Amino acid sequence: MRPRIAIDAMGGDEGARVMVAGAALARHRHAGFQFLFVGDEAQIREALKDHPNLSAASDILHAPDVVSGDDKPGQALRGSKTTSMGMAVNAVKTGEVSAAVSAGNTGALMAIAKLALRTMPGIDRPALSALLPTMKETDVVMLDLGANTECNSRNLVQFAVMGAAYSRIMHGFDRPRVKLLNIGTEEAKGTGTIQEAAATLKGAGGLHMDFLGFTEADKISTGEVDVIVTDGFSGNVALKALEGTARFVTDLLKRSFLSSLRSKIGFLISRPATEMLRDQLDPNNHNGAVFLGLNGVVVKSHGSADAKGVANAVEVAARLVEDSILERISEDLKKISETSPVAEVAK
Amino acid sequence: MRPRIAIDAMGGDEGARVMVAGAALARHRHAGFQFLFVGDEAQIREALKDHPNLSAASDILHAPDVVSGDDKPGQALRGSKTTSMGMAVNAVKTGEVSAAVSAGNTGALMAIAKLALRTMPGIDRPALSALLPTMKETDVVMLDLGANTECNSRNLVQFAVMGAAYSRIMHGFDRPRVKLLNIGTEEAKGTGTIQEAAATLKGAGGLHMDFLGFTEADKISTGEVDVIVTDGFSGNVALKALEGTARFVTDLLKRSFLSSLRSKIGFLISRPATEMLRDQLDPNNHNGAVFLGLNGVVVKSHGSADAKGVANAVEVAARLVEDSILERISEDLKKISETSPVAEVAK
Repeated sequence: MRPRIAIDAMGGDEGARVMVAGAALARHRHAGFQFLFVGDEAQIREALKDHPNLSAASDILHAPDVVSGDDKPGQALRGSKTTSMGMAVNAVKTGEVSAAVSAGNTGALMAIAKLALRTMPGIDRPALSALLPTMKETDVVMLDLGANTECNSRNLVQFAVMGAAYSRIMHGFDRPRVKLLNIGTEEAKGTGTIQEAAATLKGAGGLHMDFLGFTEADKISTGEVDVIVTDGFSGNVALKALEGTARFVTDLLKRSFLSSLRSKIGFLISRPATEMLRDQLDPNNHNGAVFLGLNGVVVKSHGSADAKGVANAVEVAARLVEDSILERISEDLKKISETSPVAEVAK
Repeated sequence: MRPRIAIDAMGGDEGARVMVAGAALARHRHAGFQFLFVGDEAQIREALKDHPNLSAASDILHAPDVVSGDDKPGQALRGSKTTSMGMAVNAVKTGEVSAAVSAGNTGALMAIAKLALRTMPGIDRPALSALLPTMKETDVVMLDLGANTECNSRNLVQFAVMGAAYSRIMHGFDRPRVKLLNIGTEEAKGTGTIQEAAATLKGAGGLHMDFLGFTEADKISTGEVDVIVTDGFSGNVALKALEGTARFVTDLLKRSFLSSLRSKIGFLISRPATEMLRDQLDPNNHNGAVFLGLNGVVVKSHGSADAKGVANAVEVAARLVEDSILERISEDLKKISETSPVAEVAK
């Protein structure tokens, strides 16, 4: 199977040039990849000139319009027939491609993908999932990161199944360690919703995961959990707190290094160390937020991703297709509906 | 007014020695402070030997029991007549002291303080508030950090009033900038609860704050807001994500510095810079989590605080008393109940 991936060439801060360069980089590593670039034809042709090898594996689908960063989801939906984002997602729906990658407006992409692809059988709501860096070698999968402001226990259970399938594919674990985000690890902690979700996951047999109860937000980066499940509000708060604090600490460090001549000299000498730090925190190395739970694979690349970041997002999309993310999710959903009426397949 | 402060001498990882040393340090800076040390009399006497000047300003109240770190709030409540924590809080209730400081079990302290002191008129639920470091000179006040798992809009409005009063006292602002934590800054973002709270705060006249709408968790540390208001679940998630990420980034940095001889040399030279960083992130410099909304001042010191941290907590307690935190909160609550029936005083 040669994955063919639609690329929204107009999303992202840098537009077609970076999206095409990212696809070229991904194809350099995976010769089988095929692409459908969606967006302004002239800009895409121009960008493809720098990557002659890529052209043979690429088609262009001209889209007259672009979803802007400020567009509300509703606006983006109404225009989706003529925007590069809408047309890229639609190509997944028609089966022309097996996945879509966009670096555009997250809310718009979610709305368009949800409407065009619909949720999978057994999934009530899709979730936004991402890979976050940890102290260990593998990233942690976290979801939902903001697609659903409020969630019930069924949603959380379904997110756990989706996150575990994602982790199995990305990290090759047979049984990823899954925990629910909470404000304490004792059984009685948190809301009734969280406790219900935990009970369902504990009670289900034969899942492809080790459900290990609750975790707290200070454990996200330690690498002791493979999948962290939460509602979209808390997940978004946690994600942004992580991003903000990483920036805060590195800014403080920069300021400290500039505070004296001695520190400046020390900084120059230890530059390989600070560059290693930057590399480990670089979002480009953890790129590939995924909308899970839809009838199709849609990957959101960071708006500011460089070619390396886009290539990572493309590879995530390809792996999810090749390793049958949808089938893996369905399989575990079935097991849950067998043991718990709470999470049974929604009609 | 010479504030007299009850110190739970047995709470905290280091026990009486550090609590007494912290009180001594605070008194060194504020000669008027008086103390009531509550706990094992022999241990307190022993610790006071190192601080002869403190003894004249101190009384000892012997408490036979101690709340342990593992005690559930219910257990702690039942034993509160004989524990150092319970007796320290009770001294606030009887008026023997004007505030209490404990470095013990947070959940137990909250439960004991709530039962003994009750919530202020007009406040439905107390909140746990803390000072967090920012890129600017002043810390940000954030609440609730975990006292209330679920909150309604009235709770959030009351937290805003309490947090603003805390910020005014700690940082001397006339009108602190107050925002509600949300997952976007547009008006339509977030839950109905948050939107309702925003509407009430926007509609209220004459408050001692500038209510400026929504903020996201990546702005907590930027210093652009003085008070961030949220429910206890999200607040706890954000706080722990901040703590975890600060540790994560500094651990990565340490690892990077140790990765080569060159980096190690650079590290030694730039040590003043990394020490400056450590100092800015040191919880001892931001110590003094406060339970706001009770009929009395109760400050929670970090369990691992050193003498400097305890002294900070003691100073926070003294300032809240001297600057009449309860009156400041009442004043703004009255203004809100005049403009909005939603937040009117609870009977």
